[in-house]
Amino acid sequence: MNVRDVRTAWSFSADKMKKVGLVETDRMFCDVYCFEPGQEQKPHTHPGSDKVYVVLEGQGRFAVDGEVRELGREQLIHVPPGAEHGVTNPGPGRLVLLVFMAPKPTH
Amino acid sequence: MNVRDVRTAWSFSADKMKKVGLVETDRMFCDVYCFEPGQEQKPHTHPGSDKVYVVLEGQGRFAVDGEVRELGREQLIHVPPGAEHGVTNPGPGRLVLLVFMAPKPTH
Repeated sequence: MNVRDVRTAWSFSADKMKKVGLVETDRMFCDVYCFEPGQEQKPHTHPGSDKVYVVLEGQGRFAVDGEVRELGREQLIHVPPGAEHGVTNPGPGRLVLLVFMAPKPTH
Repeated sequence: MNVRDVRTAWSFSADKMKKVGLVETDRMFCDVYCFEPGQEQKPHTHPGSDKVYVVLEGQGRFAVDGEVRELGREQLIHVPPGAEHGVTNPGPGRLVLLVFMAPKPTH
């Protein structure tokens, strides 16, 4: 059985936001993204894929196609294919996100 | 922006395990499944889809292709396409799962 303990998997880097893979198949992936205060995932797009971010810990500032919203623990956001999206951790605490994407992007 | 508050979305039924849809597209869905003690999702399969269950609250007993394991908060399990899988809530508390499936099954 492919079981992962999400909390023990997460891991931070002083340099930049860190991604830790939990599940990956030909069709989808599930990662945790770990942000120290001030770290970010720069705005980008995935042409054919849906993405869901779930806040596990901290506060995240999400920008999707120019709209900005701050979300906390147990809130999730869906980013549709082609939408420009980015995340920053405004602090003061750490930010941890569970991330699902399908189909798995080819780049 | 398509934002959902997971905790306020969840909802229980005395009759059977309850599914609440959070995100649905042509490619994937994300639901919360809510189990009172003793309730279950009977064993079944999805031929072409990956499924990920994340325990948000309580303890779940997962059976995948005959192997059984009990998981708690912040643990997740990946069910590959074609694997028979079911979930029961052994209690005494409620069980809440975040569930992702991709591609979205056609039945």
